Amino acid sequence: MTKRDFITVEDWTPEQVDALLALAVRIKRGEVSGGLERKVMAMVFMDPSLRTRTSFETAMFLHGGHAIVLEPGKSSWSLETEAGAVMDGATVEHIKDAARVLGRYADVVGVRSFPRGGDWASVRDDRIVRDFARFCEKPVINMESTRRHPCQQLADALTLRERLGDPRGKRFVLMWAWHPKALPTAVPASAALAAAHQGMEIVIARPEGYELDPDDTALIRKIAQERGGEFVHIMNDPDEALVGADVVYVKSWGAVKQFGRPEEEALMRQGLRDWRLTAPRLKSTRGGGATVMHCLPVRRNVEIDDAVLDGPTSAVVDEAENRLHVQRALLLELLR
Amino acid sequence: MTKRDFITVEDWTPEQVDALLALAVRIKRGEVSGGLERKVMAMVFMDPSLRTRTSFETAMFLHGGHAIVLEPGKSSWSLETEAGAVMDGATVEHIKDAARVLGRYADVVGVRSFPRGGDWASVRDDRIVRDFARFCEKPVINMESTRRHPCQQLADALTLRERLGDPRGKRFVLMWAWHPKALPTAVPASAALAAAHQGMEIVIARPEGYELDPDDTALIRKIAQERGGEFVHIMNDPDEALVGADVVYVKSWGAVKQFGRPEEEALMRQGLRDWRLTAPRLKSTRGGGATVMHCLPVRRNVEIDDAVLDGPTSAVVDEAENRLHVQRALLLELLR
Amino acid sequence: MTKRDFITVEDWTPEQVDALLALAVRIKRGEVSGGLERKVMAMVFMDPSLRTRTSFETAMFLHGGHAIVLEPGKSSWSLETEAGAVMDGATVEHIKDAARVLGRYADVVGVRSFPRGGDWASVRDDRIVRDFARFCEKPVINMESTRRHPCQQLADALTLRERLGDPRGKRFVLMWAWHPKALPTAVPASAALAAAHQGMEIVIARPEGYELDPDDTALIRKIAQERGGEFVHIMNDPDEALVGADVVYVKSWGAVKQFGRPEEEALMRQGLRDWRLTAPRLKSTRGGGATVMHCLPVRRNVEIDDAVLDGPTSAVVDEAENRLHVQRALLLELLR
Repeated sequence: MTKRDFITVEDWTPEQVDALLALAVRIKRGEVSGGLERKVMAMVFMDPSLRTRTSFETAMFLHGGHAIVLEPGKSSWSLETEAGAVMDGATVEHIKDAARVLGRYADVVGVRSFPRGGDWASVRDDRIVRDFARFCEKPVINMESTRRHPCQQLADALTLRERLGDPRGKRFVLMWAWHPKALPTAVPASAALAAAHQGMEIVIARPEGYELDPDDTALIRKIAQERGGEFVHIMNDPDEALVGADVVYVKSWGAVKQFGRPEEEALMRQGLRDWRLTAPRLKSTRGGGATVMHCLPVRRNVEIDDAVLDGPTSAVVDEAENRLHVQRALLLELLR
Repeated sequence: MTKRDFITVEDWTPEQVDALLALAVRIKRGEVSGGLERKVMAMVFMDPSLRTRTSFETAMFLHGGHAIVLEPGKSSWSLETEAGAVMDGATVEHIKDAARVLGRYADVVGVRSFPRGGDWASVRDDRIVRDFARFCEKPVINMESTRRHPCQQLADALTLRERLGDPRGKRFVLMWAWHPKALPTAVPASAALAAAHQGMEIVIARPEGYELDPDDTALIRKIAQERGGEFVHIMNDPDEALVGADVVYVKSWGAVKQFGRPEEEALMRQGLRDWRLTAPRLKSTRGGGATVMHCLPVRRNVEIDDAVLDGPTSAVVDEAENRLHVQRALLLELLR
Repeated sequence: MTKRDFITVEDWTPEQVDALLALAVRIKRGEVSGGLERKVMAMVFMDPSLRTRTSFETAMFLHGGHAIVLEPGKSSWSLETEAGAVMDGATVEHIKDAARVLGRYADVVGVRSFPRGGDWASVRDDRIVRDFARFCEKPVINMESTRRHPCQQLADALTLRERLGDPRGKRFVLMWAWHPKALPTAVPASAALAAAHQGMEIVIARPEGYELDPDDTALIRKIAQERGGEFVHIMNDPDEALVGADVVYVKSWGAVKQFGRPEEEALMRQGLRDWRLTAPRLKSTRGGGATVMHCLPVRRNVEIDDAVLDGPTSAVVDEAENRLHVQRALLLELLR
């Protein structure tokens, strides 16, 4: 017996992903109903959520199913993630047992687990969500891990197609933004992968020291090239980077090399508050009005100015809406 | 395109409210089913709830729909409410974006937001729930704001009709009660409005300093007079106020002028513990047994004595039950 | 009018319990559907849960109903449990009112309330869940109280029958295990009662001072004898106790006599870390491989070693799965 998980988009073939996006388009048009009757999704949130939880709960319901929200450490038991741990401390249940048990109750399990503490080498393998998939006999969906947010990636791919028609060869700029905290790199890596899959020209604009994980950068480059796109280059000047952009995807993330050392990282980002998408900067993009993307939640007037977010080229609410459509397609693919 | 919100009862015409209550009566008799198939309600709770959440979740389910519970700052992101804020502090998502996104997932959005801190002038405009309604493209229901609890008001109106038959001209006493905390004024204002709409004689009994917002008092008076009732007067002696009462609605609330200064307000309420509905006091009402109302949760033996709450004229559990029936009617009106 | 609650298994007749288990077997085979359309369960969790909440929410959904999760003190108001309390402290709503109101919205109410503080004499009457049942006009299900976890007991009974075929006369060893905290005795008492009802030979192995409540021990003995089983004896040496065991049910619990004095109890359990089910110990059981049971969550390598939990005779995940099947049967019995 084999089961299919959805840990990264790249675990699926391009044909499977294209079929998923095509199904999402039909769902968005209102052409698909039913298919999840008597099906249950268990969602394990080790971190907060608004879009993910609301869109999955809605998705299950709209097709006749039901989603259950679990919050280890709050409404549910705190989870141990180390194999072989002698559990005489604060954690109450091992992820192995939680995964096995939820696999008996639910038909599909979603897991959200942001990285916390430790060093990058110890968290970059996305072990928590992968262990969950290993121990659970039902399909597991990554609802955002250390390295990837594949549902966001699908929604971004759909949004790029909607806004650009044919995204091939168009310029996608991933622009780092200042933020009061060092955030995970799952979304920027996934967003750039979404654009790479569409065969776009990729630019990553970030301050020195804010490189993504080298494996992520290499994968973005490889996929862009395979799809006829290009990994143009990495720039450390937002003004230069935005010239000619068709899409600006704004996102803040923390320095990977300083991962787990927030005080040190905070010093690094001092003086970088100018990394913010303003209306004048948006004017410098292709035609003066590139499509503006962000996964939300967004820090207004810190990452992106109000005038941009509320302007005519902002796609941020569409991106969030598309989470619903792609996840409905994903659930139907996994469970029908 | 226009959409209908439900922020205050008075935003609707008396005919619309009467139709709503008539539908609630038919629902309570078991005469109405279905109508919310494939409909989703998102409930945003910035404050705790038992009745509101259980009754809305049940209401959606009973008609074929589904309700989702979101708790910003707990399971979900903490919300920024200031327009134009530079969001470099603790809040993670602006209410504008949350409202827009939820409007894409859900068919109706409920918002509960009690006032916290600041001064009264800055919160008395119910800006949070009104902004939510402004930014959300779907109907928004006020699940209790600074100034109003319109779903409670509907339930109280239905309860008054059930208990009194024809409430017109009968005497409704809103009686302040002592409580260890300074509570919001949304419920007392809404309860008095419910009685005013029924054309009752309104008495407000409260200690000096515990006046409601002057606009609320004026609105209660105006509506009572329009409906053939009367705003008798405001009294500061509970014993005097209860004489001849047909209904005693007990509720504690904080002094509006001391809003946001809890220590000062606490000094004011010292010595007011006698403001409590006791069995002897209930005896002094019309026929020795006025209908006793309270929105719940109630502090037993602090606001109302056990003997009264558990006595034959207590309507508090019926009021709570009626929340379900009026909300089923409201959802059907908004979404069918 | 009478209503049926489910506070302890022993409140029902053996015939009723047998019918329930027989229905659970048919449900597990996939032979039963529907029956809870338009029915609502309200679950009141005063303590965390993974299995209970997921299995009840799934159970209601699979038969067409809906379950609502309430968490007093977190998403909902904190509850007062003392009769006649003058509620001028931290608790916001009396259990009497919460029970009455939930009985108006829901068709069945589940309550989880672990004991906290006080002395044993004051909590051993399971007053909270019993008061809930007394005040609520709808059936109340005990989702784990101070003294009993009857849903776990049903699941354990089903698991014993599945694993042993005919459990009569076979040896059931309830083995105390060390744990960093003093846990409630509801599960060990309920597990031993499950075995007693099956007519098994019962052994309780625990260190001196870790006796269950004397009434529980007496009830286990009485039921075992009535069903043709035997209460062999109580031992204070785990190695001796395991010889000849057909089933080892591992569970930690706190010393009842030190209840409410955690520091004192912590001293007692110093030096007892050897009370742990290891692979060599399992070898000493009948045939070298007794069935291993635990209610979960389990502290791995503290209560039971990885090799045992992940070994071929471990039934812990089946026990958890059986929660779903017995609760589906229970809900159908109470609500159909």
